[in-house]
Parts: sequence; structure tokens; C-alpha cells
Amino acid sequence: MPGGPRLPEDVLARELATLPEWTRDADAIQRTWRFADFKTAMIFANGVAALAEKANHHPNITVHDYNQVTLRLWSHDAGGLSARDVDLARTINATL
Amino acid sequence: MPGGPRLPEDVLARELATLPEWTRDADAIQRTWRFADFKTAMIFANGVAALAEKANHHPNITVHDYNQVTLRLWSHDAGGLSARDVDLARTINATL
Repeated sequence: MPGGPRLPEDVLARELATLPEWTRDADAIQRTWRFADFKTAMIFANGVAALAEKANHHPNITVHDYNQVTLRLWSHDAGGLSARDVDLARTINATL
Repeated sequence: MPGGPRLPEDVLARELATLPEWTRDADAIQRTWRFADFKTAMIFANGVAALAEKANHHPNITVHDYNQVTLRLWSHDAGGLSARDVDLARTINATL
């Protein structure tokens, strides 16, 4: 499993408590941002893409409703949420 | 209605017959592309964004499953599909 295993539920709950901006949805976590306009939303999406490439971990990125971006993170390999998701969410929070 | 009215069903059917790559889903049209990798998918998403800005008509753009991009077009103002959606779909088909 290249990205590490699925996190045990208690560990995951502890990690997610430190990421209150992210919402759990089944086996994924999501966060939505709203920007001034479409261009700014695209700039943000590209920033996320650069961090995703660096981490070699690729979220779903949706630019929607003109000025919003929703990210959805999960680990396909692990069949759920792994440390890579938590790490990338933290990096995005800290960097963008 | 800045973007023109919702297209009558018979006109819309005729237009969509010329856009077989696009699938109708309720009051929207969608198309999905698959690329070599995430970077190429992002480059495509940025190409779409440039065309969308030029047209001042902004689809939902989802980069998903590592190397896929799904576009969803509809006209919020018109409450459904308008000529702007058909025009932008045609422009994307022809340009990218």
C-alpha cells in the first residue's frame, strides 16, 4: 500500500478534531472555499494542484457556482482515509 | 436575462444532436475527458477556464480520479440550458 493504511477510527477522529474546516463525508473529507470570482477560484485550484503533485496525492477538485472550490480527499489505495489525506489537508490549510 | 432565455425543447434537441460527446443530465449537459495524468488534466481545466472567462459563462469543472475532467454546463439565469451552453460546448469541442 504505497500511501499507508487506512487510519483506525479513533486515530482519525483525533486528527479530524484538529481540522475543523474539513467535513467528513463517508470515507472522504471535504472543504469548500468561496472566492471573489471565477479567476481567483481557478488560481486557488492551481495552488492545490501544485501541492497535490508535490505530495503525489490527488484530491478531486471542483470549481463550481462561479466562485467556489470544493476539495474532496480520500485514499483510493487504502479504501478510506489515510495519513496522506490528513497531511494534505493540513498542508493546504497552512499554505493556501 | 443577460445570457438569453432557456431554449425550447425542440431547438435544444436539435442542437444536442450536433454535440454527441455531451450528455444531457436534467437541466445541464456534461462531458468527461480522460488524460494521461493529473498535470495534463489540470492543463485542460485551465484551457476550459480561459474559454469560460472569454465567454463570461462559467461551467462547473471537476478534476477527478487523478486524470479525468468533467464539465457541467447550464445557465443559472435561464433556469436551464440556453444558447450560451450550446455555444460554449461547441467552442470547447473545437478549441481544446
